[in-house]
Amino acid sequence: MPILNKDMTLCISLSARPSNNGTRFHNFLYEALGLNWIYKAFAPTDLANAIAGVRGLGIRGCAVSMPYKEDVIALVDRMDASAAAIDSVNTIVNDSGVLTAYNTDYTAIAQLIEGARQQGRIDPSWSVLLRGSGGMAKATAAAFRDAGFADVTVIARNEETGRALADLYGFRWEPSVEAALAAAGERGADVLVNVTPIGMAGGPEADALSFPQEAVDAARLVFDVVAVPAETPLIRAGRGAGKTVITGAEVMTIQALEQFVLYTGITPTPEQVREAEEFMRAQ
Amino acid sequence: MPILNKDMTLCISLSARPSNNGTRFHNFLYEALGLNWIYKAFAPTDLANAIAGVRGLGIRGCAVSMPYKEDVIALVDRMDASAAAIDSVNTIVNDSGVLTAYNTDYTAIAQLIEGARQQGRIDPSWSVLLRGSGGMAKATAAAFRDAGFADVTVIARNEETGRALADLYGFRWEPSVEAALAAAGERGADVLVNVTPIGMAGGPEADALSFPQEAVDAARLVFDVVAVPAETPLIRAGRGAGKTVITGAEVMTIQALEQFVLYTGITPTPEQVREAEEFMRAQ
Repeated sequence: MPILNKDMTLCISLSARPSNNGTRFHNFLYEALGLNWIYKAFAPTDLANAIAGVRGLGIRGCAVSMPYKEDVIALVDRMDASAAAIDSVNTIVNDSGVLTAYNTDYTAIAQLIEGARQQGRIDPSWSVLLRGSGGMAKATAAAFRDAGFADVTVIARNEETGRALADLYGFRWEPSVEAALAAAGERGADVLVNVTPIGMAGGPEADALSFPQEAVDAARLVFDVVAVPAETPLIRAGRGAGKTVITGAEVMTIQALEQFVLYTGITPTPEQVREAEEFMRAQ
Repeated sequence: MPILNKDMTLCISLSARPSNNGTRFHNFLYEALGLNWIYKAFAPTDLANAIAGVRGLGIRGCAVSMPYKEDVIALVDRMDASAAAIDSVNTIVNDSGVLTAYNTDYTAIAQLIEGARQQGRIDPSWSVLLRGSGGMAKATAAAFRDAGFADVTVIARNEETGRALADLYGFRWEPSVEAALAAAGERGADVLVNVTPIGMAGGPEADALSFPQEAVDAARLVFDVVAVPAETPLIRAGRGAGKTVITGAEVMTIQALEQFVLYTGITPTPEQVREAEEFMRAQ
C-alpha cells in the first residue's frame, strides 16, 4: 500500500495525453532517495485553472507537455533563459508562490551536443539536417545554434512553420529530405537530426526511417529525438553504419533528471538515474 | 514503493493544519477496494487558486476543513442540502467540472442521532445542552433541530456567536455551563453535547471534563464531537456512569465514509470501514 501522508511534496505534469514516464522516473527516485514526495500526471481540463492550482496547492514542480508549452508562458512569473531562448516551457518550479519556467528539453539537448563535442564526436563546423518544425524542433535548433552551428537546414513540409523556425536562427529551410540532400550535394550532411514522430512506437510511421540509408551512410552523427523506442529505425541504421548516435531516450532521461534536480535540489547518483530510467521503461 | 501511475484519480483535502486522518482512511480503502485512486492532504496558500486547481486538474473530491468551510461557498457551483442547511461545506464533489458542496459532518451527526432514536436511546422531547458555537457546533445544532429537538441550550462564552447560533435554530443561549445547568433546574439536562476543543488530545484542556460529573450523572446521553482521543474525559465519564455515548470518533468515521461514497460511488463493507478506521488511528 502506498504510505501516503499529509506532508508529502507533490510534483505534477500537465499534458493532453499523459504518459507514465515522468510518474515512474520521479517516483522511483523519490523512493530511492527516501524523499517524502510524490509525482502524478494530469490531463488538465483548463490550463489557467491548473496553474492556479499549482499556486494554490503549493505544488512544487510541474512538467508541461503538448499542447501547453507556449500557452503556459503567460501564466508564470519568471522565464529562465532555457525557456526564454525558445519561448517554450516544459518545467515550472514553484518557489513559495513564485513560478519560474524552464525548458529542460533545451538544456538536455545542449548538454548532449556539448558532451559529444568534448569527445570530438561532433563539431560546430559540421553541416546539420534537422527534420521537424514543432516545439521540440525549436528546442533542438536553438541548442545547435547556441553550440555554434551555422550550417543547419530545417526540413519541414509545412513551409510556414519550417521557414519561421529556420529564419529564427538564421538557418535554411527545405520542404523535403530529398530537396535538402540535393542541396547538400554529393558529400551529404554531417549530422542528421530527426525531430518528427517518424519511428515513434505505436505511431503510423513506427517502422519508417526518417532519413534514407545513403544519407545515414554519408553522415558522421545521427540524432533521433524520438524517445520510444530507444532504438528507432534511424538509431539502428546509424549504429549499423558505425556512426555516433544520440538517442531520444538520452534526451528524455537527462531532461527528466534536470527537472528532478530543479525540483528537489538533489542530484542522484548515475546508478540511481540508470535504475530510474530502467524503471521508467519497464512498463 | 507507491506504484503511482498517470491514470490515478486524485482526491484531496484543504485545511490550514492538515491531519493524516483523511489521507490514511481514504488511501486504505482505495487499496482495499483495488481502486486506482490516491488521496493527499494540502495546506493551501490561497483558497480560490486551490479550488481553481480542483477544476483545472480534474481533482474528483476535496475535503474542506478549518478555516475554509464558509469561504469556499462562493467558489462552488452547487450546494447540497446538507451544506446549505448550515452554510458550511466540508466536502466538494467534482462532476466533470461542476463542483457540488456537501457537509458530511452534518450528515454523520444526523445519522448518529437517528440511529440512537431508533434504538430508543434518545428522544426529540429530551433537553439538550450543546457546548460550543463554531462551525461544527452549527452542524450539530442543525442536526438536532432537524431531528425535532426544540429544548436545546447553546452554551458559549462568546455572546455574539452563541446567541447567533441559538437564534438561528430557535434555541436558548447561556454563557456558561453553570448558568445552563442552573436554568435546567434540579433534573439537569437529558443530553450533553460537547463541540469545543475541551478533552482534545494535545490541546491545553486535554484532561478537562467539558461538563461536570453531576451533570453527566443526571444525563441520559453524552455526545462528544472531539474525535481524538476516541475516549475523551467526557466519554469516559459517560461510560463510567452507564450512559449512552456517541463519540467524535464515530462522527469522524461516518463523515469520512460519506465522503468516500460521494467520491467513488462505492460503499465499502462494515469490515473494510472498521479496518480503515483502525489504520487511520494507528499513527
